[in-house]
Amino acid sequence: MVELRPRSVRRLLEQLERLPGIGPRTARVLVEHLLTVDAGEVGELAEALAGLRREVRLCEQCFLLTDDERCSVCRDPSRDRSTILVVEEPTTAWAVEATREYRGLYHALLGHLSPLHGVGPEDLTIDRLEERCRGGEVRELILATNPTVEGETTALYIVRRLQPLSLTVSRPASGVPVGGDLSAVDQLTLAQALQLRRKL
Amino acid sequence: MVELRPRSVRRLLEQLERLPGIGPRTARVLVEHLLTVDAGEVGELAEALAGLRREVRLCEQCFLLTDDERCSVCRDPSRDRSTILVVEEPTTAWAVEATREYRGLYHALLGHLSPLHGVGPEDLTIDRLEERCRGGEVRELILATNPTVEGETTALYIVRRLQPLSLTVSRPASGVPVGGDLSAVDQLTLAQALQLRRKL
Repeated sequence: MVELRPRSVRRLLEQLERLPGIGPRTARVLVEHLLTVDAGEVGELAEALAGLRREVRLCEQCFLLTDDERCSVCRDPSRDRSTILVVEEPTTAWAVEATREYRGLYHALLGHLSPLHGVGPEDLTIDRLEERCRGGEVRELILATNPTVEGETTALYIVRRLQPLSLTVSRPASGVPVGGDLSAVDQLTLAQALQLRRKL
Repeated sequence: MVELRPRSVRRLLEQLERLPGIGPRTARVLVEHLLTVDAGEVGELAEALAGLRREVRLCEQCFLLTDDERCSVCRDPSRDRSTILVVEEPTTAWAVEATREYRGLYHALLGHLSPLHGVGPEDLTIDRLEERCRGGEVRELILATNPTVEGETTALYIVRRLQPLSLTVSRPASGVPVGGDLSAVDQLTLAQALQLRRKL
């Protein structure tokens, strides 16, 4: 067998196969598609990729991803400035915003505490969060870090650190996903869902 | 709800969702991944994409995709030059090569006849194929155009056109896929498989 595929094809296949959710078959379908469509379309995709990390920056107030100095939430005068919802990653805020349930501000920690990986409070944006909370306007904090060991640890650390400010602090409820099947839920989640059961 | 996602993120999402097999969810996972990995990795992917159409060209003899003037099959002195396997698209040859069953040369037509879409013999590489067959070295032609109406029509046209050269001409067998389920196969394929049944 001769290696028939040109170098640039093999290089792109390798790059694509590194991406999450893209296996060898999908990569092949993508490359064959990109070889047959208009070259301009491929150029646009390449340019969109190159632009992603060049143009995106972090909001100087809340560390969400933005095109400008401040993100669109921080700039929106109609948002409730007394509440901050804290997420680990900026992209998590997109999911929260899509629920149309939240009207306050955000704060991205840019990670979670992880002593094993050498990530301490000074590596996250916790100092900036404290500063914002000390500003006087903030009264409520929703700690939407992930329901993982690291996420819980990070939430607990923030609770302790901001205790002197006596804010209302909460965490999103854990439980059975809406539309989910009780028997398919893992034990820890089911235990939480039972402990937090609501009276009808 | 405020539009939280930066422009470059939305642009990339749009571009990704146009690709085959990539829906909104996969596109989101990809973008979130690309936002968190090393920026250099994203640059490499962008560069691999940009390079794809810039560096790949068609073999001047057989029209497979290649980095050089001639593809690696045409350059390989150990290939059997008396047989040409004809495909519609250059990428189909990669699949044939992967079977390790074929030792001859290739010829990509760069499409199929389609009077409805105004694609006639002069729009394909049939003239070049005839030229190659008239060279004297070629004795066998395997017409591996797709088992579709257009593919069959194209194969039939080539058979008629090259009849004076009295080559051995064949087409790959149609039938039930190996490892497939007879009841899941479409009627036309099953009919073919029965007509072409082999004595045991």
